Amino acid sequence: MIISRLLASAGITVNGNNPWDIRVHREDFYSRVLKYGSLGLGESYMEHWWDCPRMDEFFYRVLTHHLNDYIKKDWRLKADILLSRLLNSQHTDRAHLNASRHYDIGNDLFKTMLDKRLTYTCAFWDHAHTLDEAQEHKLDLTCRKLQLEAGMHVLDIGCGWGSFAKFAAERYDVKVTGITLSKEQATLAAQLCRGLPVDIRLTDYRELDGKFDAIVSLGMFEHVGPKNYRAYMRMAHRSLKDGGLFLLHTIGGNSSSTMGDKWLHRYIFPNAVIPSIRQIGQAIEKLFVMEHWENFSVNYDKTLMAWYANILQYRDQLAVRYDDTFFRMWEYYLLSCAGSFRARQSQLWQIVLSREGVRGGYHFDAPLYFDVLKKMI
Amino acid sequence: MIISRLLASAGITVNGNNPWDIRVHREDFYSRVLKYGSLGLGESYMEHWWDCPRMDEFFYRVLTHHLNDYIKKDWRLKADILLSRLLNSQHTDRAHLNASRHYDIGNDLFKTMLDKRLTYTCAFWDHAHTLDEAQEHKLDLTCRKLQLEAGMHVLDIGCGWGSFAKFAAERYDVKVTGITLSKEQATLAAQLCRGLPVDIRLTDYRELDGKFDAIVSLGMFEHVGPKNYRAYMRMAHRSLKDGGLFLLHTIGGNSSSTMGDKWLHRYIFPNAVIPSIRQIGQAIEKLFVMEHWENFSVNYDKTLMAWYANILQYRDQLAVRYDDTFFRMWEYYLLSCAGSFRARQSQLWQIVLSREGVRGGYHFDAPLYFDVLKKMI
Repeated sequence: MIISRLLASAGITVNGNNPWDIRVHREDFYSRVLKYGSLGLGESYMEHWWDCPRMDEFFYRVLTHHLNDYIKKDWRLKADILLSRLLNSQHTDRAHLNASRHYDIGNDLFKTMLDKRLTYTCAFWDHAHTLDEAQEHKLDLTCRKLQLEAGMHVLDIGCGWGSFAKFAAERYDVKVTGITLSKEQATLAAQLCRGLPVDIRLTDYRELDGKFDAIVSLGMFEHVGPKNYRAYMRMAHRSLKDGGLFLLHTIGGNSSSTMGDKWLHRYIFPNAVIPSIRQIGQAIEKLFVMEHWENFSVNYDKTLMAWYANILQYRDQLAVRYDDTFFRMWEYYLLSCAGSFRARQSQLWQIVLSREGVRGGYHFDAPLYFDVLKKMI
Repeated sequence: MIISRLLASAGITVNGNNPWDIRVHREDFYSRVLKYGSLGLGESYMEHWWDCPRMDEFFYRVLTHHLNDYIKKDWRLKADILLSRLLNSQHTDRAHLNASRHYDIGNDLFKTMLDKRLTYTCAFWDHAHTLDEAQEHKLDLTCRKLQLEAGMHVLDIGCGWGSFAKFAAERYDVKVTGITLSKEQATLAAQLCRGLPVDIRLTDYRELDGKFDAIVSLGMFEHVGPKNYRAYMRMAHRSLKDGGLFLLHTIGGNSSSTMGDKWLHRYIFPNAVIPSIRQIGQAIEKLFVMEHWENFSVNYDKTLMAWYANILQYRDQLAVRYDDTFFRMWEYYLLSCAGSFRARQSQLWQIVLSREGVRGGYHFDAPLYFDVLKKMI
């Protein structure tokens, strides 16, 4: 059988005894995966057609050996690619729908899964022992890269539950305007940031006015879509004061595409697309000078595994609201993504951009950051 | 007059008293610049039609205010761009000619201008007081980013006078194969690296065989040309062992182009083109994972000014072999480039690439590097 042979080439044995081996419960599993690719693999997991003790390690092996390239080259995918090139799935009207479908799932799920600040983006694990610490390290690193100073006004595009806004306002004494398309996020974010100079708005990035001293966007660019990259960068350029810095924190891919994984599209992130270096490079031409570009991919592996550990721990409590299919869907999402970062097929980029190039050069003092953090913890 | 008005908008007064003001000696200067753009500006300088006490500061102002955009939009440039898209000016047959025209000018000039190791690329000035130190910092930083270990075999594409090869062989106990297209470079490089496990070859990168543990290319990609970027990256990918790292050190531009500055083309670097993020991103797709991307642009400003100080100091000695026109040409080259880096129109990138992504993530320990350096100096 073609699927078994492909899996064997990646060291995976069907019904084998390694933790990354899969146990197949239904014979039509194979034809479903052949026919529907990643969509078939994910849906059949949700329906208990197969199991795996360490799904993250299964995906790590599948993606390291590029097995996905073998399966997805069918006509359905080609039609999807064509469609994604013609349509703008992240148009303003649809963007609201895309965001609320995922981020309005329920704050209780995210409260269980995430760190205490509700930071739903990759953490930074150097010198960190817990998810809470790792997220604070990331937020602090981000503030330092932006060279925040007291009194500055910062724009946070895709502010989530206000985790960056709160941290920056508390620790760096800045004013933050955060925008999001998710009602549940906006409500909770405003509540969590009460008493701080933080303004949370339920608005699309295309509808924003004003000039800011610095801009940050953590884990939102994945929802923008290639057709809107240039408009997004134009907006950021227009909204940034002369001499200001823009930190773009996004998942990145090793090659350009116009659409994402079909299963993730349907069940987790409607219309999300992972950008490439080429696409970002093209979008910022003549607008920004790229000052610093870091790749944290393996940190996302750790972050996703920490999130998974949290939902496993509170599985019984979550079961009251979320059924078994939902839980398996969520499990598949977290572990397939962890495997993808581990296989280095997905990257996590922090890119510092400036409007005209920082005179005298951009400096970011990493060692200082660690010293301060060590004292802080 | 249009030229005077444009210059005034950048704070430059014709026949003014600021160090960055220009003194125009011939009235037809203006029409020549209008007609021939950067080519006219450079050639008229070589012919004493104008002077400037601080040409670097003049160019810094011209480029910060994007005056070059106003002038270069004529039909001649458009024809050149079209031509550069049709032709491959860096084809193997022409590449030899391009390289020897610049790098075979005479080793004595470069010996006077450069550091003691003859490193003809951007230095790294953090914690450095002299050009010699700054170049050693750069070479050491490069070796550390490549994670060199004793016994490794390193390929150096565009090895110049062997400065990296010698440093890496001496300090990191590695074997180096260096390739260059300049005969004068190859001869002197072989001589300077005598007694070390360094093999210098006079060969085009497209004609190379073998597998290496690491690859470095310092200041050579600027000569590759957009039509050959993909071939260059394929060659690097083919020549790199699994798990190996490739460090690309190149001047970078804020937007994509298929040709460089006309004056620089004619007098300094025949057929050199500065790559953009988009072009590099496109060239590495599905070949490399980008692990780390740093921008050192202002370091090149300092490096060029240090080179200029060296040739000024030894002007009388150089005059025996190089006439006044040559000296003004060289002056114009160094100072216009320094101004371009200072204005942040040109960037200097060090990009670390891996074949399949470093398992567990790429780490480069900058603080350790500085500690070691401090003890070393």
